[in-house]
Amino acid sequence: MSRRVERLAIIGLGLIGSSIARAVKERLPDVMVTGHDASADVRDIAQTLGLCDAVIDDAAGAVADADLVILAVPVGGMAAAASAMAPGLGKDTIISDVGSSKASVAEALGHALPGHIVIPAHPVAGTENSGPAAGFASLFDGRWCIVTPDAAAPADAVAALTEFWEALGAKVDVMDAAHHDMVLAVTSHLPHLIAYTIVGTASELEEVTESEVIKYSAGGFRDFTRIAASDPVMWRDVFLANKDAVLATLQRFNEDLTVLQQAIRRGDADKLEDWFTRTRAIRRSIIAEGQDDPAPDFGRKH
Amino acid sequence: MSRRVERLAIIGLGLIGSSIARAVKERLPDVMVTGHDASADVRDIAQTLGLCDAVIDDAAGAVADADLVILAVPVGGMAAAASAMAPGLGKDTIISDVGSSKASVAEALGHALPGHIVIPAHPVAGTENSGPAAGFASLFDGRWCIVTPDAAAPADAVAALTEFWEALGAKVDVMDAAHHDMVLAVTSHLPHLIAYTIVGTASELEEVTESEVIKYSAGGFRDFTRIAASDPVMWRDVFLANKDAVLATLQRFNEDLTVLQQAIRRGDADKLEDWFTRTRAIRRSIIAEGQDDPAPDFGRKH
Repeated sequence: MSRRVERLAIIGLGLIGSSIARAVKERLPDVMVTGHDASADVRDIAQTLGLCDAVIDDAAGAVADADLVILAVPVGGMAAAASAMAPGLGKDTIISDVGSSKASVAEALGHALPGHIVIPAHPVAGTENSGPAAGFASLFDGRWCIVTPDAAAPADAVAALTEFWEALGAKVDVMDAAHHDMVLAVTSHLPHLIAYTIVGTASELEEVTESEVIKYSAGGFRDFTRIAASDPVMWRDVFLANKDAVLATLQRFNEDLTVLQQAIRRGDADKLEDWFTRTRAIRRSIIAEGQDDPAPDFGRKH
Repeated sequence: MSRRVERLAIIGLGLIGSSIARAVKERLPDVMVTGHDASADVRDIAQTLGLCDAVIDDAAGAVADADLVILAVPVGGMAAAASAMAPGLGKDTIISDVGSSKASVAEALGHALPGHIVIPAHPVAGTENSGPAAGFASLFDGRWCIVTPDAAAPADAVAALTEFWEALGAKVDVMDAAHHDMVLAVTSHLPHLIAYTIVGTASELEEVTESEVIKYSAGGFRDFTRIAASDPVMWRDVFLANKDAVLATLQRFNEDLTVLQQAIRRGDADKLEDWFTRTRAIRRSIIAEGQDDPAPDFGRKH
């Protein structure tokens, strides 16, 4: 038996949920999409934007008859969202998500939906904007989607989820949830934590006014403000859900920062130059792999 | 008497020097531009690109008859560059620079060029690329240029330098060198140090391969790789030249990072959400002030 997704339900119609809806409309026009959001305001906007074939007021109603349900809510809200829709779920429905931490989500969904097919996933894509109007169909083009099935996940369901994400333009990797959480702690969670920290630090110094920080931000600071403008609730939940991996990675960052701090204090020019030369090569690899814009300055208009 | 720049000499033809040359050709076509770089290869490229009216092999020859000389070399190389050109300098020539630290440059140039008119300056603009081919005429459009004259600087010379940068599209602020160094430690030097650190940390973990870091960099990490790809020698020099302000600012960053680390460890959701909500507002101000692209994700192509 091979599965194909013909009816999709999206729970949560923010940046990611609404981008999935738009991408499906564009790339998989035969798929019927129902959507639900816990917020009546968001549902109204989704209705006005025509994001889905139907926007449904109750979660259980939205998932009835779905082949695939994607939970696109903050990771701390997965359990509640799963419980709300549970009464409407068929036993054959694949339940997946888009959360940035996977072990905690697997546990929450496994607990809330015993006996159901749960296959957590994480498309590594986004922008600093939030809400149903912020999404766009090409968000997943060329980005990786990491799927973290456990041993019980049916192979045909994993294949159907993989095929779905590939149809939306993503490349799919499969790994276990714990490894995902360590990898994303490095490539996403720590960068967000550092960005949130430095933007907070800069805005609270006595010696330098906030107005000066804003005026002269083109010296580098403005780059950090983009990810520090990401959704506060989503990121609060990510740090709490992936606490151990984030703290372990932060420990390594702190060690390295202390080494560079000492090099500056001692005037160790060679150590600084060696370090800065090594890091330059990483960006070239990211561009060669198609994971960033090759244009200078991210392609900002000058 | 009022001064106007009619003959400009640029010492150092990398990203910034070559951008000045291009901007002058476009915005101030009557100004005669001579250029020099300590590297014969760079001089050849500058000649081929037609960056200047004349590319001169010796620094002293390049500055002869100039109304304004701009040193666009790493801040650690200012003293040597000044000494090399000193024999050719007229007493009326304004000597300025583009370095990212100002107190150390003021001291180095004052010492190397006694009795000359030295007015340090810093256009807060750039990209991650280096070299004479990386420059472009619009680099300074809408960016701030900070001029840091000392008490001895003639007012007409400060006015002429201000007028010059404004003609290139920049907005000009005047402040003292020590304050500049504190402001830029926050808006530029600390962000670069943090970016260099995290990119190094991520590339040296045992648990996560460099290939994984590159593949999943769209989760946030790739943003940091841009400024961590900046010129290693330039940045080595900045950290050594502005050591005190950088270390003072780093201390504040470390305090804040420790607070957030503790909030994660303790599961203090409110503290995290409050912090992340506050930082979101800063980006809106930067965009409102015209200091970053309003498009999502810096306007990267999706």
